[in-house]
Order: sequence, then C-alpha cells, then structure tokens
Amino acid sequence: MNDLSERNVYLALLHYPVKNRNGETIVSAVTNLDLHDISRAAATYGVSGFYVVTPLTDQQILVKKIISHWTNGSGGIYNPNRKQALDGIRLSDDLDRVVDEIKAGGAKSVNIVATCAADKDWNIGFDAFCRLVHTSGDAFLIVLGTAWGLTDEFLDSADYVLEPIRGNGAYNHLSVRSAAAILLDRVLGEEPRI
Amino acid sequence: MNDLSERNVYLALLHYPVKNRNGETIVSAVTNLDLHDISRAAATYGVSGFYVVTPLTDQQILVKKIISHWTNGSGGIYNPNRKQALDGIRLSDDLDRVVDEIKAGGAKSVNIVATCAADKDWNIGFDAFCRLVHTSGDAFLIVLGTAWGLTDEFLDSADYVLEPIRGNGAYNHLSVRSAAAILLDRVLGEEPRI
Repeated sequence: MNDLSERNVYLALLHYPVKNRNGETIVSAVTNLDLHDISRAAATYGVSGFYVVTPLTDQQILVKKIISHWTNGSGGIYNPNRKQALDGIRLSDDLDRVVDEIKAGGAKSVNIVATCAADKDWNIGFDAFCRLVHTSGDAFLIVLGTAWGLTDEFLDSADYVLEPIRGNGAYNHLSVRSAAAILLDRVLGEEPRI
Repeated sequence: MNDLSERNVYLALLHYPVKNRNGETIVSAVTNLDLHDISRAAATYGVSGFYVVTPLTDQQILVKKIISHWTNGSGGIYNPNRKQALDGIRLSDDLDRVVDEIKAGGAKSVNIVATCAADKDWNIGFDAFCRLVHTSGDAFLIVLGTAWGLTDEFLDSADYVLEPIRGNGAYNHLSVRSAAAILLDRVLGEEPRI
C-alpha cells in the first residue's frame, strides 16, 4: 500500500476539444458507463479528483441526472458502493476552470498531462511519470480524451504527453475506460514503476 | 514487446454461476459494453481466445446480435477496428465446453484461473501467475465473473484463484471491464511481473 498523502493526481475526462474519426474537432456526447467505470477506478486508486468536462448544457444536465440517480435516488440505496464513486465526480465546462479549482484547493502548480494512443506524440514514459508523481510536490491533471482522442492542438499545449499503453501486437484500440483503469494501476497501483 | 508464441492465455466472461448482491447464485444478464471493452482489451493484449459464457438462449441471441451488428452490419463499415475485436468473441453456454474447445485447439492441459475481489479467497499472486504463464506450456483460462462475482463453489473448484487487484485505500469496486483491462496489462503487458 502506498502513501497517498504526498501525491496529487487528478483525472479529467474531456468531451471538448476531441477528434472524430475523420480527425475533425468535435464536442462528444457523454457515455453513461464512462462515468461509472472511471469514477470507480478513480476511487479505487485514490485519485484526488475526477472531473467530467463538457461545455454543453444538455450534456451537463445528463451527467447531473446520472450522478443524482446513484447518489440521491434509488440507485444509491440499491448500491452504496456505486454512490460513493459517483459522488466523487465533479462536473466542469472547461479545463481551465478545473485547473483553477485544483489551485484553489491548495496546489501551487498544476501540470496538464495529456494522453494519446499514437506512438509518435508522447514525451514522457510511464516510468519517468511515475517517478515525477511520487517525488514532485506539484499537482498532475491527467486528461483522457473521449471519441477519437484529444486534438493535436491540445497535445501540443499540454505540459506532458504520456506514453501510450501498448499491448502485444498491431491491434491497439482500448476503450477510454480500459485505458483509464490501466493508467491508474500503473501510476498509483501497488507496484508503481518507480 | 513480448513473444506471444509460447503463451496460451484465454479469457472467459461468466454469466452463470455468479452471485447477486445477497450472495445468491444467479444467471446474470449480458452487458453490451462488457463485450466491447473486454474484446478490445483481449485483442490489444493478444489473448488467445475470449469467451462469453451464458446458458440462456435469449442472452446468446442478444450476444450474436451485438457481434453481428459490428462484424456484418453497418457497425463494421463505420468502425473496422471494433469489427476486428468483436469478431474474436466466442460464445459458449458452458465453461466445460470452453475447456473442450481449447483442448481441441491443441492444448494438453487447461488450468481454470478464477478471479475475485475479496482478499481472503486467492491462492496465487500476480507475480507467481505471470511466471507460470510465461514459463509453462499449459493453457490458462482466466475466468471473470459478472454481477457480484463468481460463486464460492466456483472458486473452490478452480485450479487457481488469482490475487485480487487492489487500489490505494478501502474502496475496491472496479467494474469487470476495468479489472479485465488491468489484469491483462499486468499479465501480458510490456512489463509483465516475471
């Protein structure tokens, strides 16, 4: 078991700006199970905050409705564990506001850590990132892209772009839910790569 | 990149016998996104076969319908990567038949490796299991339980029960999709624990 007290890892699931299958910038729709699976993984690995980011009002209403069902509604009575995880979701319309909120919570510096599936765009490996997380006093906001991933402009503007998760062959198409789980296990799991 | 040629890891998603929230044995319903996420992770990590196991005819029809949409239907044209992953799903009504099928494919011995979230029931750690997978000539069929997990009777009858995935605190409620992804990354990823 690791000591989490000195760690400062946040997670954001971005719905804009992301790419569609043609590489065009879009606002993606929120996926119900993203909220469930990633909030449960975030709670399991002791992430300091999990933010769902979408600028669309109707999508924000949807997110609130889903969370409310499992926290205030019958879902919370049926499954208290789910309630605890979804209770931890914070909703935001913009990543800058997320950074401001993390800073308001006491973090001096918030590093934006983008994620991608392409092998050409990254600039920090898992080992180096783990060392950084476990030794630096900074906060790290890991950003996961929905749809076909974060835009090139977003990757260019990030402080770090994390090494993609690779499997054992040519196929490399994990869901954002699976990628989030693996990433948290590698960075915050029992045997982090430090 | 690891050499997969000597490895023989299979995955089964079991819908019976599993537990409900009261610990009673039930047949669970198939979840659409389990098929998508776990087949994508199985393809990414080079699993030799991913089996969806349910004894219910209507659920088998549902599974076939979902797979068909993404392999023969419009989904396959829209997203060829998804087609490739879902194409790899094998449907079975019984785990014994899965074992027979793996043996018919040439495996001499098939070890049933059950998974669980409780810390008391396991008898092989991740490190030892990785060594086994990477050194033994046997086949290993990792069984994931849906709903509230595999029954105690199933755990008792398995050849191995794998150490649960733990996070960093008291909360430990990953989805079966997240658990499958983390498990495959630990056992078949770029840096297996051998």
